[in-house]
Amino acid sequence: MKEKLYIIKIGGALIDDEDLLDEFLGQFAAIEEKKIMVHGGGKLATTLADKLGIEQKMIDGRRITDKDTLDLVAMVYAGGINKNIVAKLQQKKCKAIGFSGADANLIKAKKREDAEIDFGFVGDITEKGVNKKLIVKLLKLGLVPVFSAITHDKKGHLFNTNADTIASVMAQALSAKYDVELLYCFDKAGVLEDVNNPESVLKNISEEEFSILKNEGKLHKGILPKLENALGAIRNNVNKVFLIKETELKNHIENHHAGTEICL
Amino acid sequence: MKEKLYIIKIGGALIDDEDLLDEFLGQFAAIEEKKIMVHGGGKLATTLADKLGIEQKMIDGRRITDKDTLDLVAMVYAGGINKNIVAKLQQKKCKAIGFSGADANLIKAKKREDAEIDFGFVGDITEKGVNKKLIVKLLKLGLVPVFSAITHDKKGHLFNTNADTIASVMAQALSAKYDVELLYCFDKAGVLEDVNNPESVLKNISEEEFSILKNEGKLHKGILPKLENALGAIRNNVNKVFLIKETELKNHIENHHAGTEICL
Repeated sequence: MKEKLYIIKIGGALIDDEDLLDEFLGQFAAIEEKKIMVHGGGKLATTLADKLGIEQKMIDGRRITDKDTLDLVAMVYAGGINKNIVAKLQQKKCKAIGFSGADANLIKAKKREDAEIDFGFVGDITEKGVNKKLIVKLLKLGLVPVFSAITHDKKGHLFNTNADTIASVMAQALSAKYDVELLYCFDKAGVLEDVNNPESVLKNISEEEFSILKNEGKLHKGILPKLENALGAIRNNVNKVFLIKETELKNHIENHHAGTEICL
Repeated sequence: MKEKLYIIKIGGALIDDEDLLDEFLGQFAAIEEKKIMVHGGGKLATTLADKLGIEQKMIDGRRITDKDTLDLVAMVYAGGINKNIVAKLQQKKCKAIGFSGADANLIKAKKREDAEIDFGFVGDITEKGVNKKLIVKLLKLGLVPVFSAITHDKKGHLFNTNADTIASVMAQALSAKYDVELLYCFDKAGVLEDVNNPESVLKNISEEEFSILKNEGKLHKGILPKLENALGAIRNNVNKVFLIKETELKNHIENHHAGTEICL
């Protein structure tokens, strides 16, 4: 039987709320099984970009990462946020070790190619881009990797990469070795059957149900890429995938079901 | 016989010069023995502090690290600079892995206590603060640790710590296990016997000679703390300590003597 590994993704809203983050990190630190955290950004990068006069470029509603923005997010994500999370986990006796994808070539990506839009310094993880071998060795040393959503191409360039995607791809890569449970933690109680009814949390959602709800326009737009990453994971041998509320982590770990489970 | 380990400290002027840095990283990557890099800051933190309106506080000519400055240097040093160096070393086939002292509790410090000045978030490395065991394990995995000069107290706080001191303390800690050679790389050819004569590079300098030159006011003020850290290392069982010019790294590794050797 494979050993259990939790891969837990947290988002910007949690990172921006100091007290909530602290409570969450306490729940995370208490997990006894092997675990990895992947974290997103938060408002700090945008706030700093405004103050520094770095314009946020958008094309067709898609965010472009120019060089100034990349330099900024590398600092904020891989430096400020990552090291603060690591220091707070260390305080809670969790052997956290913070990484970008460049470190030890842990996550290799290539610049996004798109016929219509030049996204700038946005990287898509390459096939076999996750350095599984080394991550396994680090986990065996008892360490708890904490990943910021910065990758590299092994040609000297850093990239901005979606944190939900990193969590999904990493979960897929490590599923050969571990019994992986992927948790997307966010500020909702789970996937709502009806976006206008906060009580309508689905206990689980299958690929087919997702398609139907999506086509009926019933899902919150913001949740679509998250669900697509979650489905990508469950399709590719990740044992369990859930979307849960950040405050429910402890409850989920203990009772094996909070939020919405993603099924085939 | 103990295995050789180079601990190589680089400073801000090198980091600020993209071409020079790239050449240096190529020379560093080519070193075949085990190696560790410790890097300082550079002008970026000051430039950003100016743009963000973060005032640089000084008391009696000593720099104070207030919370805003700490947040900024954690981002710039442990994020921007560290990850760019790591990505560039990876490009050069060096298995670089970037760290702050908080990561895996690699460097534990405590807030500087001073009866007269509150230095703010400045940390002094504690006795046994260097996590030797884990650094040895990482080196055995073939990895090349790259340290930014950010430490933590295991109570959730990050600190700004002098990079020269980190290099010295780390060299001392690892000397029980390795034959450590500590190299301080900077923009001078070595220690000058007369600060006004660039040709007066000393081949070596002993503790006694240092005291004499210091008392005679012949040494450049900026080099004093570096030399004190270098002497601290050689006093505490570090096998060899040199101050060399950044461009001379390859030459020094191959010919075993560029710059000034620090002796007892």
